[in-house]
Amino acid sequence: MDVYLDNNATTVVDPKVFEEMKPFFCDIYGNPNSLHKFGAGTHPKMVEALDFLYEGINAADEDDIIITGNATESNNTVIKGIWVDKILKGDKNHVITSEVEHPAITAACKFLETQGVEVTYLPVNEEGVLEASKVKEFIREDTALVTIMWANNETGKIFPIKEIGQICKVAGVAFHSDGTQAIGKVPVDVQDCNLDYLSFSAHKFHGPKGVGGLYVKKGSELTPLLHGGEQMGGKRAGTVDVASMVGMGWAMHLATSTMAIAYEKNHVSKLRDKLENAILELPETIVIGGKDNRTPNTTLISIRGVEGESMLWDLNQKGIGASTGSACASEDLEANPVMNAFGSDSELAHTGVRFSLSRFNTEEQIDYAIDVIVNAVKRLRGISSSYAYAPQSHKSEL
Amino acid sequence: MDVYLDNNATTVVDPKVFEEMKPFFCDIYGNPNSLHKFGAGTHPKMVEALDFLYEGINAADEDDIIITGNATESNNTVIKGIWVDKILKGDKNHVITSEVEHPAITAACKFLETQGVEVTYLPVNEEGVLEASKVKEFIREDTALVTIMWANNETGKIFPIKEIGQICKVAGVAFHSDGTQAIGKVPVDVQDCNLDYLSFSAHKFHGPKGVGGLYVKKGSELTPLLHGGEQMGGKRAGTVDVASMVGMGWAMHLATSTMAIAYEKNHVSKLRDKLENAILELPETIVIGGKDNRTPNTTLISIRGVEGESMLWDLNQKGIGASTGSACASEDLEANPVMNAFGSDSELAHTGVRFSLSRFNTEEQIDYAIDVIVNAVKRLRGISSSYAYAPQSHKSEL
Ligand SMILES: Cc1ncc(COP(=O)(O)O)c(C=O)c1O
Ligand SMILES: Cc1ncc(COP(=O)(O)O)c(C=O)c1O
Repeated sequence: MDVYLDNNATTVVDPKVFEEMKPFFCDIYGNPNSLHKFGAGTHPKMVEALDFLYEGINAADEDDIIITGNATESNNTVIKGIWVDKILKGDKNHVITSEVEHPAITAACKFLETQGVEVTYLPVNEEGVLEASKVKEFIREDTALVTIMWANNETGKIFPIKEIGQICKVAGVAFHSDGTQAIGKVPVDVQDCNLDYLSFSAHKFHGPKGVGGLYVKKGSELTPLLHGGEQMGGKRAGTVDVASMVGMGWAMHLATSTMAIAYEKNHVSKLRDKLENAILELPETIVIGGKDNRTPNTTLISIRGVEGESMLWDLNQKGIGASTGSACASEDLEANPVMNAFGSDSELAHTGVRFSLSRFNTEEQIDYAIDVIVNAVKRLRGISSSYAYAPQSHKSEL
Repeated sequence: MDVYLDNNATTVVDPKVFEEMKPFFCDIYGNPNSLHKFGAGTHPKMVEALDFLYEGINAADEDDIIITGNATESNNTVIKGIWVDKILKGDKNHVITSEVEHPAITAACKFLETQGVEVTYLPVNEEGVLEASKVKEFIREDTALVTIMWANNETGKIFPIKEIGQICKVAGVAFHSDGTQAIGKVPVDVQDCNLDYLSFSAHKFHGPKGVGGLYVKKGSELTPLLHGGEQMGGKRAGTVDVASMVGMGWAMHLATSTMAIAYEKNHVSKLRDKLENAILELPETIVIGGKDNRTPNTTLISIRGVEGESMLWDLNQKGIGASTGSACASEDLEANPVMNAFGSDSELAHTGVRFSLSRFNTEEQIDYAIDVIVNAVKRLRGISSSYAYAPQSHKSEL
């Protein structure tokens, strides 16, 4: 049986989404900016898609949602736009972020540091959550931007975006959230949270790869990252990828309806809990960061004496796809940065396995996965020297 | 009958290309960076696609081809990478380009100017071609980059990229070409032309929208525009859009085979010539820049007394899609910048209509289009005040 439990890395395109995209390859293929009917033929479905996007995150009509190539581009647009507009051209020189952001934030911040910008990387607490008070503590006169993820890709932990938004509003500092792991999993309301910017990527919520979005509040416009034609009102140049935009719109619609969010909360979380509880019945296993305040689909579990990579290998042999953490970091076998942020020692940092579910998983799949996982743990612990030698030292380490 | 003659704006996806893309939405959907089989399942077709791309432009094995979101992103990656690496961090401060580049170059150069960079916009000659000697004349000690398009999107004029490449090599200046309108129309050989960088966009050669490429010669690596994960060797972060990459590979393969290039040269150009000659039989019509040295599929024709926008409207009513020039500029009704570059007066600058063909056009379509166009010209000239008043002044203006 094939069981895909790596939905935080990417998701299958919902067949309904693909149906909506299909006509825009070989049939309705005009450039939306063209004046003739081949171009204009794309407009109704683009308008529909934009409507779905605005609804999905509760953007106000006067705000912008810019279609980008992915969340990475959205994140870079904000960070480098702020750099150009408020740091190079203004009098600010400081950015606040967290220690557990995705590389699409961290690497862009590191780039800013090479340009002389000061960046504060706030640590998370022992539950893997950034406390809003930390943001308040570190905001300075010259802070140009606060950028904090909505939900963590490794642990699923949900950050106090509304509180942070309030703090930024009072301080008059621009606030961006990388919402990539939040869309479709928890309600996302940009107005309620006082966001200036929100990034997302369609392929994380059953849309196609290669398309993302950037919400920009009216009045918070930035110098574009992609200069060129007048697409997106000049805010993001490049011929609009109609098929992908339509796909993202539908994916947003399907993922953020009240029903869909309820399904995540009630059904996907049940499957996740069933899987998680079965693993936790094995001795010396823990959920990194604990069970509170997570997206309904994610669990990051540390299994003493079992190297994450070996576990993945065993699971893969049986048709199960999981991850040791961010897919972006998984090619090099470095320790998971989020687990480092917890202060895990290097051995523990290598024992994390992330299971991330979606609405396409079934109970039958989860039952099968539990069976495979339990057997894999037994097998791997049987051949693990560190587990044999130090079976009791695990929990005290955290 | 529907006749699409706006292939320089965008093209239909070749059904064969779409066939190759299809499995990567709902079936083989893994993240290529994931370690399990859902990820690995994407690799064979990605390797094949890359091979096609390397072959299509004759890149050397040790060079990079980075998959981007479009040519706009590729262009911005080069221009802003040079800015960061050689201008902000180095001792150069000058960029050379032409007056007739696409906005994806021009707008990025204008941005550099706001940052204190000097940009030289070289004029084209009366045939709409940039002379290589001009580049030599304007290269300075502090020139960081020469960026010149391979073929112009409005006129189809082909620029002397090989000669310019030689000049840049001797001068030790980095050389980029925007090859967006050249791929599939004329042979493109990055090694033969001494290019450091080449940009292209799949949707201009019957691939999907929302994916492009950037060739980077070994040793010419730049700071990325999209910082983040380790995709593309850290040179362009963001989850790889497998479907689009596979589509672009196949589109490149189909468009750049010896047979395909020969078909453009021998067959598409014949249809273009037939259309063009039929229009030129009408009095006071000229091909902007003349007939030499063009891509086989493009003609930009000025029809005295006929406003381009009105002409498009008439054609559109009859199912024919054409353009007054760049789709990116067509929403605002500004005069065509390329025609301005020719020194056209503002009336003439509004009379250009661009027809751009593809291998999907048939002789039957062209015959129909000729009929419609000739009738449209007659009708519009009948109601044109400027044509009635000054029928003879046209050719002397150029
Ligand atoms: C010469 C040239 N460069 C760049 C582009 C930009 O391509 P894209 O919109 O796919 O980024 C175009 C087409 O619009 C073009 O014709
Ligand atoms: C929190 C977060 N931000 C950003 C990204 C980047 O998304 P993409 O690769 O689609 O740009 C990801 C996923 O990889 C993510 O999990």
